[in-house]
Parts: sequence; structure tokens; C-alpha cells
Amino acid sequence: MKITCLKSELLKSINIALRAVPVRSTMPVLECILIDATHQDIRFITNDMEMGIETRVQGRISEPGVLAINAKMLSDIVRKLPDNNVTISSDENYNVRINCEKAKFAIGGESGEDFAYLPVVERDTCVTISQLALRQVILQTIFSIASGETNKLMTGELFEIKNDRLRVISLDGHRISIRRVDIKESNTNNKVIVPGKTLQEISKIMTGDHDDMVNIYITENHILFEMPDTTIVSRLIDGEYFAVDQMISGDYESKVKINKKTFQDCIDRATLFVKEGDKKPIILEFTEGNCNLSIESPLGAMNEDIDIEKDGKDLTIGFNPRFMIDALKAIEDEDITLYMTNAKSPCFIRDDEDNYTYLVLPVNFTR
Amino acid sequence: MKITCLKSELLKSINIALRAVPVRSTMPVLECILIDATHQDIRFITNDMEMGIETRVQGRISEPGVLAINAKMLSDIVRKLPDNNVTISSDENYNVRINCEKAKFAIGGESGEDFAYLPVVERDTCVTISQLALRQVILQTIFSIASGETNKLMTGELFEIKNDRLRVISLDGHRISIRRVDIKESNTNNKVIVPGKTLQEISKIMTGDHDDMVNIYITENHILFEMPDTTIVSRLIDGEYFAVDQMISGDYESKVKINKKTFQDCIDRATLFVKEGDKKPIILEFTEGNCNLSIESPLGAMNEDIDIEKDGKDLTIGFNPRFMIDALKAIEDEDITLYMTNAKSPCFIRDDEDNYTYLVLPVNFTR
Repeated sequence: MKITCLKSELLKSINIALRAVPVRSTMPVLECILIDATHQDIRFITNDMEMGIETRVQGRISEPGVLAINAKMLSDIVRKLPDNNVTISSDENYNVRINCEKAKFAIGGESGEDFAYLPVVERDTCVTISQLALRQVILQTIFSIASGETNKLMTGELFEIKNDRLRVISLDGHRISIRRVDIKESNTNNKVIVPGKTLQEISKIMTGDHDDMVNIYITENHILFEMPDTTIVSRLIDGEYFAVDQMISGDYESKVKINKKTFQDCIDRATLFVKEGDKKPIILEFTEGNCNLSIESPLGAMNEDIDIEKDGKDLTIGFNPRFMIDALKAIEDEDITLYMTNAKSPCFIRDDEDNYTYLVLPVNFTR
Repeated sequence: MKITCLKSELLKSINIALRAVPVRSTMPVLECILIDATHQDIRFITNDMEMGIETRVQGRISEPGVLAINAKMLSDIVRKLPDNNVTISSDENYNVRINCEKAKFAIGGESGEDFAYLPVVERDTCVTISQLALRQVILQTIFSIASGETNKLMTGELFEIKNDRLRVISLDGHRISIRRVDIKESNTNNKVIVPGKTLQEISKIMTGDHDDMVNIYITENHILFEMPDTTIVSRLIDGEYFAVDQMISGDYESKVKINKKTFQDCIDRATLFVKEGDKKPIILEFTEGNCNLSIESPLGAMNEDIDIEKDGKDLTIGFNPRFMIDALKAIEDEDITLYMTNAKSPCFIRDDEDNYTYLVLPVNFTR
């Protein structure tokens, strides 16, 4: 096999492919990038058995063939090469040569015989959405998936496609994040749970350009994201997702409008007195036109008043400041509206257009 | 005590003072910043018993007094405050209040009774040098001090003041770095060993402006750096420094002129095949007009040709690539000159003006 690509193109494709390379694997070939130069174009393929990536590389094939190279080694070498044409070639024993200008590297490669190619996914139904929009809703919800293995369903996000809208939902038992976004084209209604890890990786691969689209194909066990040069296939999480709509009520007794940045900065200051792992809440006391935020811990105390607009009852309620900040960070609006019922019931942050709903459970407090 | 300062001024002074706060100390008061508001101006003092810092803070004293506050806590709080006036006050029990706009913090402070103030240093002799110049020569030599405790002398740098020039020297047994720089004013010739830790910290405090000066005062046990708002006192390392001038010979058998960036990039590529801790050398083969760099390791092999200008004998010599790169990084010249005698003798990199000399010992190699 022999291919020639510009260093910059090579690096771009390697960086995409690296996202599906496991850090350590029982099958060493999975730590490789498979270079497939048997078609018209050069393809890099990686697969960590949960997610697989195939990306097209700009370049020239002078000798067709297949070759697997340790992904980290290839990436490290290419990164340090001059900005010029790079030639990667291998002989019948899979000895690899990488040449660029006067630099000549020799490393060992593999045949790639036992490499796990991407599963074939049928493309019956298709949903098309802007890469930017998809990336945003992932980033605005991914923080509230659960990291542990206590509940597999919580490690993923619900993708609900219905009437040309995509609703993305994550929850970890303390809070729920819901984002709704328009789909460009769709010929299906569907509901699947996508692994959080997959979403984190594809959010890094997708561009920030509104005109770039991604096609999404869903089968019983897989989801496929198709971008112009890159295809990503991921397993789905099996099971019935939580009945989130039943947890979300439209009722409230206090409605509070507050400047988002002021509120976020104030809570951020309060986090100084919360040590990792201790569950010290911030206490919010909502009265007419004012919110008093206070925290007391062995480290010290803080309190601060914030101007608000309030409809409904006065209320004192406690929150984990971390959870509140995570939700606020995901919102771009200048002012936000909190809906609360009492100190034991969840607080909702939602906009009038129903583009987002963030639910945060309150925390018991004493004083 | 009660003082009021702008948040930005406070933060600037805290960041300077933090550089002499030990991470953990048997004397908790040393983890504090001492606020001394008993003079005309506000002073922050910190001391880790090897180095002490006193810095003046822009602000207003409304109630004179002394107060010690945990440095990390003070820094964390001030960092998160709005950009406005900050008031720090304490009562007779050293309860501290920090107020800024509507945010009110309450933390515990200390009397500072048992705080270690800076030692008094006599100012008989004075050396004045540009902060920028001093900072540069520190950064260009500090990488070759030894980190361990095997030889205390090697953990410091020799400051040699002679005839209006400062010579700074560091060595770790594998290499020597020497930089020479002009002094603006001086009434002394002297030779002391300054702890590397002190130099690292002051290089971060000094500005990058050529017109800002620092006065240096030296006594038997201490060195004092005096900048417009900040004074730093450090212990000196006791002992007789190595006779470096005897190790540096003017003789050579091969003189090689090489483009610095090309040489550095090429060695950098070779480091891919050197794992942390293994002592794989790069092998340089200097012939007429050409340097061939090669490395071979279980990970792979690399070789590359570089254009050079050579006077004298052909030579093949091995180096630890890390040491060579460190020296090259510290040099700003476009082209550099290597002076070598044989594969067992040190390689010198030095300029014609004698502003710098870097010595790197060769490494045995087999092939």
C-alpha cells in the first residue's frame, strides 16, 4: 500500500478517527487506525466496539491496499512533520515507511485482518439536522447524564424525533435537561437512547457551521451519523427510558424572573464554601423583588441580595449549587424564569417557547 | 482593621504574594497572607521560610491594623468578586468580612502574631538590572538546574557579578548553561548561589518591560530583589560553586553551523522514539555539508538529513535529545554554531559575542 496526503489533511482525518480508538483494548488491532486504500478514496476506520468511525482522507493512492497502524504512534509522527506531502507505504510484511521532505520514519504495522469493520446499518428512514444545532443541544444537555454504571439508561440521552422536531433528554436522578430543536427533514418518528460517550465524541467532530448537515439513520440496535466525509455508527442503549413527561408539571406557586449572569455569578461565589463531596446547599429566599442567597459552612459564610421580579408566594428553598450552575451555563438567555411550588418540589427553568426545560431537585436544609 | 481596594488591584497583589505561600506548612500562619495596614500604605506579606515577599497594594486604609488570612481562601474569594471596590475588615476576634457590591463574605482570620516577617537585609551594595533582562537570563538557564536533593548546589544558579556584567550559570551533571547580560549600575563584584525555586518565582513576578528595573542587594546569607512595589528576600545556598570555567575549553576539532529551527524540529521528531526514562540517544553524523540524524528503538526508527556548514573533521556523536532540545529552545538566534572535539567530549553551542554558552555531554551509542 502507498498513499500520499498533505500533512494538514492527514492530521484532520487522524484527529477525527482518534475519537473511536480505545485507550487500552484486549484486541491490540483496535488501538490502530485501519487505512483502507482499496476504493477510489482513502478511508481511515477506527472502532472501539461501541462506536465506529469511517472518514475519507484527501490524498492520492499510488498502490492500493489495507494497513493498520497504531493510532497514537501515527498521530504523534504526523503531528511533528513539516507542512508538506506525506507518503505512507508498506511492504508485504507490513513494515511501514512514513516520509515527509527529508524525514524518514520506519515503524511496524499490521495486516488489519482481524480488524472490526463498521456494522452495516440500513438506511430506510432518515433525519436531517444542522450539525451546529445538534452539537448545541448535545452540549446543553450532556452534563446531566449519570457517569456511573448504577443505571445504564442514565448514561445515555433520549433522542425523540416527532413531527419534525428533535427532543433530547438527559437525567441523573437529581435533575433533568430537555432541549427541543427543529429538524430540517425527516421521514420518521422514533425514540432511542444514544450512549453519552458517543454524543460527547460526535459533538467534537461536528463543525460549528449552520449550513453543514448531518443525516441520522436509526435501526433497532444502531444509530448512524452521516456527515460529508465522516460516518459514525454507534450502538444504542437497550431499554425503556424514563417517563419524563410525567415528572414535569405545569403547576407552580412562585414564578421568578432573574438576570441569568447575576444569578450564576452569585451562586458561583457561594460554591467557594462547598467542598467536593459535601452536600452543603445554597439557600434561596425569594421575597417581593428580592432573592437572598446564603450559604454557611465550616469554611465561612456568604450572603447576597439579587433583584428579581416575582409572581406568587414567597418561598425559601435549598439547592446543590453545582446542579443549578450547570443548568444556568447551558442557557443563553439574558433573563431566565424559575417556576417553583414549595421547598420539597422541583424547580423548573424554562422559556416561553418551550425550547428548553431544566428541572433541578431541591435539597433539604436546616438553619 | 479595615481596607478598601479595587478588585483588580487586590488580585494583582494577591497573585504576587501567593508565590511565597507554601502549599502545606507545619505553621498554618505561613499559609496566610499577612495584611499589614499599620503604615501609610497597605502591604501584603508572605513567607515560606526560604523566600519572603512584601508587596504594596493600591487602596485606602480606614482602620489601621494587622490581619492574617488564609491565602488560598482570600485568593479564591477575590477572584470571584465583581470588578468593583472590595472592603476587607476584621473585628477584635479576627472575624473577617469581605464585602463587594451586594456580596458579603464572613470567614475566620488570624492575628498574625506568630507570622515570620521578612529578614532585614543590609543595602550596602546595589546592582541594578532591567527586569526583562533578568527574567530572560533566568528562563534561558533555569532548565538545567538539578531538581533532586543529591547535590544542593545544583538546585541553584550561580549569579556572578563582575565588571558591570551578570553571568548566570546552572548545571546538572549532564549539561551547563551560561548566560551573560549587561548590568545597568553596580558598585560591587560578587558571586552567590541563588535557589532555583526563588528564581522561578521571581521570573513570574517580573514584568516583560525593558524600562522596569530591579535592584539587587546581596549579603552573606540573603539576596534581596527590590522592584517598584514588591520586595523579595531569599536565602542563598551555602557553598563553593563548581569551577565551571575549567570545564569549558576553547579547543575544538569540528565546527558546525546549522539552522536552529530545522535542527530543533528534527530532534523533536526523533524524541517520538524515546520513552520516558530510557536513555536512547540520537546519533548525529557530521560530514561535508550534511548532518544525518538517526535514532533506532523498539518503537521504530527515524533518520533525516540536514544541510550544514562544517569546518574541521567529520564526526559521529550521540546525544540525549531532551538535553539538546532544552538548549536549543533557550537560544533565539536563527543559526547556531556547535563546537565538538570527539564522540566522548562535550559539545558546546556558543555565539561569537559570548552572550551564551551551552554545554551538552555526549552519550555512548552502539550500532
